[in-house]
Amino acid sequence: MESSSYWTAFLVFAGANLALLLFASSITAFIAPAAGGSGIPEVKAYLNGVDAPNIFSLRTLAVKVIGNIAAVSSSLHVGKAGPMVHTGACIAAIFGQGGSRKYGLTWRWLRYFKNDRDRRDLVTIGAGAGVTAAFRAPVGGVLFALESLSSWWRSALIWRSFFTTAVAAVVLRLFIDLCGTGRCGLFGQGGLIMYDVRSTAFVDGDLIMTYHLKDIPTVVLIGVIGALLGALYNFLMANVLRLYTAVNERGAGHKLLLAAAVSLLTSCCLFGLPWFAPCRPCPTAGMKNAGLASTTSSNGTCHSLNRFRRFHCPAGNYNDLASLFLNINDDAIRNLYSTGTNDVYHPGSMLAFFLASYFLGVLSYGVVAPSGLFVPIILTGATYGRLVAMLLGDHSGLDHGLVAILGSASFLGGTLRMTVSVCVIILELTNNLLLLPLVMLVLLISKTLADSFNSSIYDLILKLKGLPHLDGHAEPYMRQLTVGDVVAGPLRSFGGVEKVAHVVHVLRTTGHHAFPVVDEPPFAQSPVLYGLVLRAHLLVLLKKKEFFMATPVRCAKESIAGRFEAQDFDKRGSGKQDAVEDVEISAEEMEMYVDLHPFTNTSPYTVVETMSLAKALVLFREVGLRHLLVVPKACDRSPVVGILTRHDFMPEHILGLHPVLLGGRWKRLRWQKGAVTKYFRSLIVWIASSG
Amino acid sequence: MESSSYWTAFLVFAGANLALLLFASSITAFIAPAAGGSGIPEVKAYLNGVDAPNIFSLRTLAVKVIGNIAAVSSSLHVGKAGPMVHTGACIAAIFGQGGSRKYGLTWRWLRYFKNDRDRRDLVTIGAGAGVTAAFRAPVGGVLFALESLSSWWRSALIWRSFFTTAVAAVVLRLFIDLCGTGRCGLFGQGGLIMYDVRSTAFVDGDLIMTYHLKDIPTVVLIGVIGALLGALYNFLMANVLRLYTAVNERGAGHKLLLAAAVSLLTSCCLFGLPWFAPCRPCPTAGMKNAGLASTTSSNGTCHSLNRFRRFHCPAGNYNDLASLFLNINDDAIRNLYSTGTNDVYHPGSMLAFFLASYFLGVLSYGVVAPSGLFVPIILTGATYGRLVAMLLGDHSGLDHGLVAILGSASFLGGTLRMTVSVCVIILELTNNLLLLPLVMLVLLISKTLADSFNSSIYDLILKLKGLPHLDGHAEPYMRQLTVGDVVAGPLRSFGGVEKVAHVVHVLRTTGHHAFPVVDEPPFAQSPVLYGLVLRAHLLVLLKKKEFFMATPVRCAKESIAGRFEAQDFDKRGSGKQDAVEDVEISAEEMEMYVDLHPFTNTSPYTVVETMSLAKALVLFREVGLRHLLVVPKACDRSPVVGILTRHDFMPEHILGLHPVLLGGRWKRLRWQKGAVTKYFRSLIVWIASSG
Repeated sequence: MESSSYWTAFLVFAGANLALLLFASSITAFIAPAAGGSGIPEVKAYLNGVDAPNIFSLRTLAVKVIGNIAAVSSSLHVGKAGPMVHTGACIAAIFGQGGSRKYGLTWRWLRYFKNDRDRRDLVTIGAGAGVTAAFRAPVGGVLFALESLSSWWRSALIWRSFFTTAVAAVVLRLFIDLCGTGRCGLFGQGGLIMYDVRSTAFVDGDLIMTYHLKDIPTVVLIGVIGALLGALYNFLMANVLRLYTAVNERGAGHKLLLAAAVSLLTSCCLFGLPWFAPCRPCPTAGMKNAGLASTTSSNGTCHSLNRFRRFHCPAGNYNDLASLFLNINDDAIRNLYSTGTNDVYHPGSMLAFFLASYFLGVLSYGVVAPSGLFVPIILTGATYGRLVAMLLGDHSGLDHGLVAILGSASFLGGTLRMTVSVCVIILELTNNLLLLPLVMLVLLISKTLADSFNSSIYDLILKLKGLPHLDGHAEPYMRQLTVGDVVAGPLRSFGGVEKVAHVVHVLRTTGHHAFPVVDEPPFAQSPVLYGLVLRAHLLVLLKKKEFFMATPVRCAKESIAGRFEAQDFDKRGSGKQDAVEDVEISAEEMEMYVDLHPFTNTSPYTVVETMSLAKALVLFREVGLRHLLVVPKACDRSPVVGILTRHDFMPEHILGLHPVLLGGRWKRLRWQKGAVTKYFRSLIVWIASSG
Repeated sequence: MESSSYWTAFLVFAGANLALLLFASSITAFIAPAAGGSGIPEVKAYLNGVDAPNIFSLRTLAVKVIGNIAAVSSSLHVGKAGPMVHTGACIAAIFGQGGSRKYGLTWRWLRYFKNDRDRRDLVTIGAGAGVTAAFRAPVGGVLFALESLSSWWRSALIWRSFFTTAVAAVVLRLFIDLCGTGRCGLFGQGGLIMYDVRSTAFVDGDLIMTYHLKDIPTVVLIGVIGALLGALYNFLMANVLRLYTAVNERGAGHKLLLAAAVSLLTSCCLFGLPWFAPCRPCPTAGMKNAGLASTTSSNGTCHSLNRFRRFHCPAGNYNDLASLFLNINDDAIRNLYSTGTNDVYHPGSMLAFFLASYFLGVLSYGVVAPSGLFVPIILTGATYGRLVAMLLGDHSGLDHGLVAILGSASFLGGTLRMTVSVCVIILELTNNLLLLPLVMLVLLISKTLADSFNSSIYDLILKLKGLPHLDGHAEPYMRQLTVGDVVAGPLRSFGGVEKVAHVVHVLRTTGHHAFPVVDEPPFAQSPVLYGLVLRAHLLVLLKKKEFFMATPVRCAKESIAGRFEAQDFDKRGSGKQDAVEDVEISAEEMEMYVDLHPFTNTSPYTVVETMSLAKALVLFREVGLRHLLVVPKACDRSPVVGILTRHDFMPEHILGLHPVLLGGRWKRLRWQKGAVTKYFRSLIVWIASSG
């Protein structure tokens, strides 16, 4: 740039961006497609009980880390926080499945974690550690994992997450200590607090970061704008992602083409738009509200790699739009948050940057590469916060940096709908406790208002990907249905002592993961439900064939005990599930019998078929079940009527069976709207009756 | 004191203390006994589903506020945080029960909260607001309510608590603004951050609040000491409370005598012990490590109402033990936390203050008056923190104020076993983010170590009071039992159409709150379970007598619908439960029949009698039930075998029925100890096998 060969500069810039992004896209598309996107929706679904394949494999981990580094370096408008969450969850999941035998990274003590609940807890903790690493916010990490990701809470999980994030914070601090003396190059430059906005900075004798009662309307305005912009962002993002999915489905070539197109668009915006901003002289210390303008050196230049950019301006001048576009995201946010810098940026540039940031954010996330949402949203929010402060001018007494922080918070509340975790993360990012009440207020206004339009981004992406995430609250129409109304047949069950051929046939022809075991005469007087047996355990049985018997009798417990260990029935790691195709049974063995009694769960959870569907959902979700047996009310039929799984509770299934519920009062309402109306109506009634 | 008439001073001091404490004790003992103590165990039990009487009435609220003010003013070594939590919960509960009709404070829109779950949520939120008000810590308030009090979590509850604490923080800030100019006297003196320990204070050019890797051993030592002292504190407290309960049971006179004795002991300690401390000259600005010693005025005196006390010393000198004892708790804590004041206090005084604070804390809590635990524990912890720092001397490079903060955190972790909430509360109290990793580390060490000795104070008090708090995890012996093993008879059930006399008889002779409704012929072909009916609803039925019928037939739904509204069946406020003694039935009405079908819950949760007790407990606790119906496995018996309530899951009941479980492997282990041993054993096995 300094030699004024601008086209060369542009080609170098755009070329490097394109190369990096194509690298990230290709490794994602060809090696580990599960590593694309931010990963947070997949982790959220996993913690709800949905076992999506391959999201936690070693390949995904490697591609996620390398791909994200490449994608962020390519100036794409994406962040790193989401991929770090997925990375942390990956590492935890790999521990939970006992390491990776394929690569020789396994330890015996890890086998204690080979069950559903411990693996889920480990993933929650790992995700929290990821947030801690991204924002250097230990308490924020715990709260994020518990508020946005986890479906079930308990006290023990909280202090375990806490321990993990504390260790992560201490290790971070250690690295900062080690690298603090400049030995690590650019690596150690940041402090423990990323955007340190000290609340005791003074300018002209006035405390900058102060606020008063008359500032509340400004805060409310920021919250409302954040809600509207956030809801619109979610809406646009959902539609863009739908479009991108249609494009990406056509093949890897289309994925790379899309990535290339977005990269070129980004490069053009980043390089092209600053040409429209006028050059201005560097801010001097004498200028009012130029804040930390002592960065202007003695010969009048203020250029640095992280604040003011010269771009095409003559020496001693700076281009404010280039200073926003061409700095890395973290530095741009720091600059926007800096206090006492009210006159450094100009409204026109801020507006241009805001629009570019907003729409580039919507367009960039769906590219097939590991990408995050957080930091672009924080940046966009800070931008419109400053813009609003500039437009309000003297009507608001708040410092522009402060309003930028509030803008970030409100935009985060409007898009991601997080409250406590964002508050604590912002507190830990800016080290400013006095701001806390304002940040809380702005978050709540934006979240409440935005919730009346649509769901958070992660929920929209979950629906787009078709992951069957089960919410905790029952929809209104569920109260009108009983369990018997949604149970779909036919029911496949096994006898207590079953022929091997029948077992293999059922396993091959259906995809169910659990089967009821019914004891028929002569093992019981009348058909009675004995329990529930899992497909995984049946496959273990079929692989060890020593127990097959020629005649259908119940075997003694002792004869079984010596042949199996508890580890044989451990939950397998992801990607290592047993498949029925791997089981080889000879024709002679097919005619033999296997006793299922010792391997059956004799205490399955059951509901009567007349139970309200809403109550059954509460039971299913709160206890965390995968299968729920339905028993008949009267005793004269088969002892088990059906099995419910999470798919039976999904709206698509229920409304598909009973389309009459779609119309009228039983339509799936956004419950907040109904509740708000109800409260307003009763409030009006009260006013009328007491007046 | 200045006129050296020391006995008069002592008499005035002790007399005022005695009068205030006797006032607090008498209003508690005579007006509202439920207001004694801190109230947090009662709130915790309520949030677990235990409906203890009178803990949330208006009388309790008034006595709690006034009594706590009096108790704290009487120099008793108690705090105000616990009572504030109870106060907040009271206010919320009063809203939840629809205001108080007795005092005319009721609004119609409150009727939407008249159900179990909303009332419980309101109480959780109110408790969080109480913590916020006590510590000016909004995020800490949310986390405290969710970590220590609440038994069930959901995302909606978190952001609702968050909203409440945000509003509380904004109102606080408003008051501070208003009172900041001194218009409110002493009321507005504090800032939003109570113990502002800024991390950028410098002395002699060195940053005070810094720490390095070599400080980790000191931190670990603080944590271990905190755990040991905390576990001992809990043990002593439990035994002292047991003794006090035995004394208090003898009558109100004994309660007042005990209160008087403790008050006199406290006055003697507070007034008498400073006599043993030597007088020292006021710290001057020239003294090293005297910190904010610019409080020493020009004529050499440093006395003030909140820092240095002169006591009996000549002018220009101060008595450091008096400075600790005779300041209010908040000021004492602030002084102990102040940085750069390493030489202001002396080890002997610190030790004396620590011992007095420790044992007075144990002895004072059980007095019949509203008292809190938090602030005394923080103070005691700060004291031994400083003591350890003094004893370590130059081996530790940490500032003594910093170690005092860590001491408080470790003692809180050792006694109350809270982690995330304490961390955030301390962060909000001291506004020092850089300390966060150290505080987290110290909390976790102390909590983990102390958990291997005994439970937290609140759990010990819960057991002492006999409140049936139900934990989430199943004890080991429960896996050996089925539901049928613990169901206690006889079972009282009603027919679908029942004679009024029978209903009244059963309600009068039993204390059960729910009864199964069984349809016999001719209403059904064979006896079948129809549902579950609640005592409260039966009493509503009995009070409205229009529906009684002369012959046992099922009435049509329409004839019922017009006579009842939903509000008739609302959950009553505490203390306003309907009682069967209030129901007046004439002999003629006794012979009539009532149709229970429209008022029965037709979807009760049921378990089969062969279900494992551990699984039934999980269902009971996770779904949040009060009654769980037990149905038989075979169909040829009565359609319902029994009902389980929380008392059936209590260890006393189960082990009382099956004393054989007490011995051997099924003894109720402290699970952590077993898990730790198990992990160590497997670790040793791994080391041995891999070595």
